[in-house]
Amino acid sequence: MTRPLVLTLGEPAGVGPEIIAAAWRARSTDALPFAVIGDADLLRRQGAPIAEVFAPVDAAEAFPRALPVIHRPLPAPVVVGRPDPANAAAVADGVEEAVGLCLAGQASGVVTAPIAKAPMYASGFRFPGHTEFIAELTADAPYPGTRGPVMMLTAKDLRACLVTIHVALDQVAELLTAERVARTARVVHESLRRDFAIARPRLAMAALNPHAGEGGALGLQEIETLIPVAEQLRGEGIDITDPRPADTLFHEDARATYDAAICMYHDQALIPVKTLDFWGGVNVSLGLPIIRTSPDHGTGFDIAGQGIARPDSLIAAIRLASEMAAARAAR
Amino acid sequence: MTRPLVLTLGEPAGVGPEIIAAAWRARSTDALPFAVIGDADLLRRQGAPIAEVFAPVDAAEAFPRALPVIHRPLPAPVVVGRPDPANAAAVADGVEEAVGLCLAGQASGVVTAPIAKAPMYASGFRFPGHTEFIAELTADAPYPGTRGPVMMLTAKDLRACLVTIHVALDQVAELLTAERVARTARVVHESLRRDFAIARPRLAMAALNPHAGEGGALGLQEIETLIPVAEQLRGEGIDITDPRPADTLFHEDARATYDAAICMYHDQALIPVKTLDFWGGVNVSLGLPIIRTSPDHGTGFDIAGQGIARPDSLIAAIRLASEMAAARAAR
Repeated sequence: MTRPLVLTLGEPAGVGPEIIAAAWRARSTDALPFAVIGDADLLRRQGAPIAEVFAPVDAAEAFPRALPVIHRPLPAPVVVGRPDPANAAAVADGVEEAVGLCLAGQASGVVTAPIAKAPMYASGFRFPGHTEFIAELTADAPYPGTRGPVMMLTAKDLRACLVTIHVALDQVAELLTAERVARTARVVHESLRRDFAIARPRLAMAALNPHAGEGGALGLQEIETLIPVAEQLRGEGIDITDPRPADTLFHEDARATYDAAICMYHDQALIPVKTLDFWGGVNVSLGLPIIRTSPDHGTGFDIAGQGIARPDSLIAAIRLASEMAAARAAR
Repeated sequence: MTRPLVLTLGEPAGVGPEIIAAAWRARSTDALPFAVIGDADLLRRQGAPIAEVFAPVDAAEAFPRALPVIHRPLPAPVVVGRPDPANAAAVADGVEEAVGLCLAGQASGVVTAPIAKAPMYASGFRFPGHTEFIAELTADAPYPGTRGPVMMLTAKDLRACLVTIHVALDQVAELLTAERVARTARVVHESLRRDFAIARPRLAMAALNPHAGEGGALGLQEIETLIPVAEQLRGEGIDITDPRPADTLFHEDARATYDAAICMYHDQALIPVKTLDFWGGVNVSLGLPIIRTSPDHGTGFDIAGQGIARPDSLIAAIRLASEMAAARAAR
């Protein structure tokens, strides 16, 4: 039987605890059972029955009747909506422990609830976010393919992968080196085969410029970088298009022509993902030794504790991690 | 009674003639009657009965039973899919005549079928496209407000307006001057009142950078330019937001919060428009003395003449021009 997933609590003063409880209440046999690494007392206050367990292996049996929790008490009291840097180290420790359980073969993957950057930084955390932290935690683990991380965002029938992520728009063009685009495409190609069970992945490359540069009149990056990279990748056996105008790449008929879009910058990927599926988007880290997904939203301090936070994205992240684990297990 | 619209033929070797005939067959009382300026023989071959008329005023009576055409014969034979520069001057003349009819008060607005740039340029046409050509043709006409043109793209419940249009992505940031952003917002604000009968238009400003620059960490244009411009515009009585992250601006709940989005670059506006409504998008030129709309697609040389070109966008353009004419007439 496939091992359970591990969920991390994320920022305890945000929506994480309540959406985790809601995701457990919405549990289904479509997805793997999971254990939460976090404070059992905090989770108990979210209205779900709790089963304290010692390891993920114990989660499956408890899961139908209670939310399995690997209890890691927080040092400071939690005030909803007010993150406390005194709890930040415990938040990071939870991620590290979850990753360790995956690397040790005790869990099938990790699903991370959102963290808040400010209290983490205030306590000495030195990574831009989860993704880079997890990449470092898994850097010494063996990995059979091109190493990421590459960020993929999913929305129903769209998978959008990013070549550049959190940079100012006017920095994007100079970051689009052939090496960076090619590495992203290779990671995505390999991951669609390994994690998504797609035997012959079809990739669509989004152009940087309007009208794909219109033959050079609206920018040269397509001619100088993207078209040659696409040719090179096809020579490696990767099915990828030449750069296509981004505005005609995301409507329903277009989405049916590829398995993943390679997007050049943050909003080029995130605008279609969030326009199509604002509540159910999932963030996936590709090209890591472990499976890792997360909801595609933040800590929601403004709505935390009111019972109105929607668990859709977390539920979708749990389901996707389950599917990825099944695909890897079937190889 | 409101005067008819005038349609221009556009590139005669493209899909223009067949979608014009299809739009006439799909005519409804929701929209104004129209006359086409173009070659009656070419239009006759599209399977619609033709009524040759001398002026738009004659179109309304003929419209229920036949497609009214102001006959302007083309000098060269039309080969479907193969544009001939010998016809390019006639294409431009048709636009000029249509604009003249609007300026003379004989027509309520012009709806332009798509033109092909290559044959137009080969024959000496010197404008980037329809919009700039029409702006010049109307430059000496009086206009009561802030003059455009500003390009607006519409999709069902979304109006997206562009500050920069056909420029390479790495040129966008330097073109985003306070003056250019403010002028765009003023034209849109005034046009929503005049042409769309929205008494108190609500504008949403899209940010340039991911996460709206995240307080400066992901780009300074929001802090240095966009937020001050938004404040200035609010001081003028224009209801506009501070720059909002573009990825969260276009889902259904977000669209309900504004009447038009002010977008900073081509794909920021066009990705959501075409993702939401690929077939029915309309291109509108705001801030001109005349009403002008057009379908949001090209000449379709690859599919012309096969009877498969969809008239949805042209029909939407005709309907929107009709609504705009009614709004202007009611003032």
